[in-house]
Amino acid sequence: MTKWPIPHAMQLALDAARAAAAEGEVPIGAVVTRGDEVLAVAANRTRTPPDPTGHAEIVALREAAAKLGSERLIGCDLYVTLEPCAMCAGAISHARIARLYYAAPDPKGGAVEHGALVFEQKQCLHKPEVYAGMGESEAAELLRDFFKARR
Amino acid sequence: MTKWPIPHAMQLALDAARAAAAEGEVPIGAVVTRGDEVLAVAANRTRTPPDPTGHAEIVALREAAAKLGSERLIGCDLYVTLEPCAMCAGAISHARIARLYYAAPDPKGGAVEHGALVFEQKQCLHKPEVYAGMGESEAAELLRDFFKARR
Repeated sequence: MTKWPIPHAMQLALDAARAAAAEGEVPIGAVVTRGDEVLAVAANRTRTPPDPTGHAEIVALREAAAKLGSERLIGCDLYVTLEPCAMCAGAISHARIARLYYAAPDPKGGAVEHGALVFEQKQCLHKPEVYAGMGESEAAELLRDFFKARR
Repeated sequence: MTKWPIPHAMQLALDAARAAAAEGEVPIGAVVTRGDEVLAVAANRTRTPPDPTGHAEIVALREAAAKLGSERLIGCDLYVTLEPCAMCAGAISHARIARLYYAAPDPKGGAVEHGALVFEQKQCLHKPEVYAGMGESEAAELLRDFFKARR
């Protein structure tokens, strides 16, 4: 049996998630790419410095925008290990991300295929193409192990 | 006729919005308070530096969190001149803001009383008390004048 390989960018996001767990942050990672170029690799960073908006997606989008010198990330894709929440889905739309790839669904906090369904609102000015499931088991296991160890 | 006075914090948010317009940013302002203390005053800042997440609310929440040394702004209130979008409503929830005051409704992009209805989702872990309408005409006029001048 050959397992279908996880794309490089999602693998980088999973690696970032793993590193975040080691620092006590919830293990979620995100990567922004433009073609083959990796523009930003980030993980959840809500504690140091304290930042309620410090989800992996937000950190990655801000870094990519700074790098490109534009708040619109035209032609860029975002890879993230967990289904984005309402805050992050909104940010992805504002940033004009072309394609969103996420690993695990998040019934409790996700807002792409759950809850607020941010991209499905008729007000949503920009909706990325959305692909889910690559690296799902790896991403979910990271989160499960993290929260199990903290109980 | 005596017009009901706009609370000090909302007046600060309107002043920040006005200053943003002068710099070419969409005139939206936000203020975080804790009791009588003003923790952060911010305006939209998406262009310099380029930041797709640079809405007034996000900037104000990040500043207040840095000031308090906590990503949870327990007992803090947010005043903003326009109904928050999905990104900002999500951030407000993550930050545990106690009371949200916004001036003008935003049928096109708001996600509090429109669209994604972020705080109404059963997944929403923290819902602030919400008060709308104070300073509404002033806030709406700032936006109207800004976009009229750019047409």
